[in-house]
Amino acid sequence: MKYCFGVDVGGTSVKMGLFTESGEILDKWEIVTRTENKGEGILPDISAAIFNKMQERQLDKSVVLGVGVGVPGPVTEDGTVSGTPNLGWEYKDAKKEMESLTGMKAWIANDANVAALGEMWKGGGLGEKNLVMITLGTGVGGGVVLGGRIVPGSHGAAGEIGHICVNYEETDVCGCGGSGCLEQYASATGIVRLAKRKLEKEKRDTVLRKESVTAKAVFDAVKEGDAVAVEVAEEFGRYLGRALANLALVVDPTVFVIGGGVSKAGEVLIPFIQKPYLERAGFGTKDVRFTLATLGNDAGICGSAKLVLSK
Amino acid sequence: MKYCFGVDVGGTSVKMGLFTESGEILDKWEIVTRTENKGEGILPDISAAIFNKMQERQLDKSVVLGVGVGVPGPVTEDGTVSGTPNLGWEYKDAKKEMESLTGMKAWIANDANVAALGEMWKGGGLGEKNLVMITLGTGVGGGVVLGGRIVPGSHGAAGEIGHICVNYEETDVCGCGGSGCLEQYASATGIVRLAKRKLEKEKRDTVLRKESVTAKAVFDAVKEGDAVAVEVAEEFGRYLGRALANLALVVDPTVFVIGGGVSKAGEVLIPFIQKPYLERAGFGTKDVRFTLATLGNDAGICGSAKLVLSK
Repeated sequence: MKYCFGVDVGGTSVKMGLFTESGEILDKWEIVTRTENKGEGILPDISAAIFNKMQERQLDKSVVLGVGVGVPGPVTEDGTVSGTPNLGWEYKDAKKEMESLTGMKAWIANDANVAALGEMWKGGGLGEKNLVMITLGTGVGGGVVLGGRIVPGSHGAAGEIGHICVNYEETDVCGCGGSGCLEQYASATGIVRLAKRKLEKEKRDTVLRKESVTAKAVFDAVKEGDAVAVEVAEEFGRYLGRALANLALVVDPTVFVIGGGVSKAGEVLIPFIQKPYLERAGFGTKDVRFTLATLGNDAGICGSAKLVLSK
Repeated sequence: MKYCFGVDVGGTSVKMGLFTESGEILDKWEIVTRTENKGEGILPDISAAIFNKMQERQLDKSVVLGVGVGVPGPVTEDGTVSGTPNLGWEYKDAKKEMESLTGMKAWIANDANVAALGEMWKGGGLGEKNLVMITLGTGVGGGVVLGGRIVPGSHGAAGEIGHICVNYEETDVCGCGGSGCLEQYASATGIVRLAKRKLEKEKRDTVLRKESVTAKAVFDAVKEGDAVAVEVAEEFGRYLGRALANLALVVDPTVFVIGGGVSKAGEVLIPFIQKPYLERAGFGTKDVRFTLATLGNDAGICGSAKLVLSK
């Protein structure tokens, strides 16, 4: 039996998993992300945690196929990271450093991209090879998998779909400095922005006025049939559908996997996205499946393990 | 010495080329595209032309690595074509048919995609692996090459960038039934449309009013410093730049190769596209090269040959 490690580095904790080569998760745990001193301790901490686990399980290096690591920032195909503010890293040859720390093979990729790979392997995109995952969280992230492999892009920027422009008339400014970015409409904060903007002009009664507005509150209200909330969800879906229709004309996936905190609203989301998508999709790209992510917080460690097992 | 054939099927003629395995073009010629009877004669005609050439050159099947064919319609990874109005084809297993006709290996791909591969191999994208080619002709086509390979998409629809929406306020309808498609602004006919729309409201003197407006006339006038033509070119570039900025956030290429009839205007085109691109491009995708296609009508046969030689 051979094994591998899947690692998902976040700004506050590092999720780690031990997998068999057939894909079973034997163990998972977390360590703290030490971002001080430009995050110089992060990879050594991961390496130490791997060796502890190998000792605990009495696994020799010869039976470990390698280590996959997902990182919150742009990662190029050769495993270099060109700066991740969340971890304090500047330019880092993460693959080389990880291999030299562990003496084992390592693969590094962007965290949203490995999540997409994880969902392809064991989640909402099971059995597919051409998949786009959209992560609707505080921001909007994405990962593109084609032919079963992550598309990293020339600068590690492939799948950065949160900043696709979906509204050239927008005057509010996005965190990136642009205007009309998908993130301004489809992230958790974007949905709140849409709801608040609507409430300013809205005269009808709505449960959204009763408490502090969150993305969850919007979709809870949708489930209760609140007409104002439904219109907010329609606006959210119109912009996300627009972005995905354009994206499909570039990479033509089989399935869109919707993940991130906003996706916890459940299946109620799908029609709001799918209807405007179909209105704009080209002939060849109408036949695409929309599905929810199913792995939750495990998507990252699964995808990172799959990086190792695909090689 | 081994050889291969590169074939580019158009609606009126089929371009054919004989290549050495090192990529030299030994011979190129054309045959007529017989679209009658649902185009059933097209592949047999190609096969016969290949055998004629092999006889003429005294080449045995054992030294021919295979045949690559570019087709004007959606082609999936397995070489099936799901309908090409230009050729009269309905569903066709073109790879299987070509292999059975010739007794040699065949690879089939979309014509815009093989042109992109050709430009990567020998043209404007020489030396690159992540490239998007944009063909500005009667319509707007595109081809995406990642990691040195064509991205066909799940339905053969990847790279259909002419129908990316770049203006959600547009009221004129595109040939596809949608509105605001890139093709309405960046094709040869789209540029004429922009120019005519401008001339209706324009009071300044401009050479564009003197003759029938064509895309070529617009860029000729730009070269002469005609202020109205410059504004038409700016509008063209703004929409194309918008589309490419969104596209870059999906696949993050190293280079954009601009081809098709409109690109004959030359280097004058590039700043009109690059400036609005840079205004919208995300941080990671600003560092992209814009270049003109250099292979002209040979891009298709070159890319088709490369399909064979990459395998």
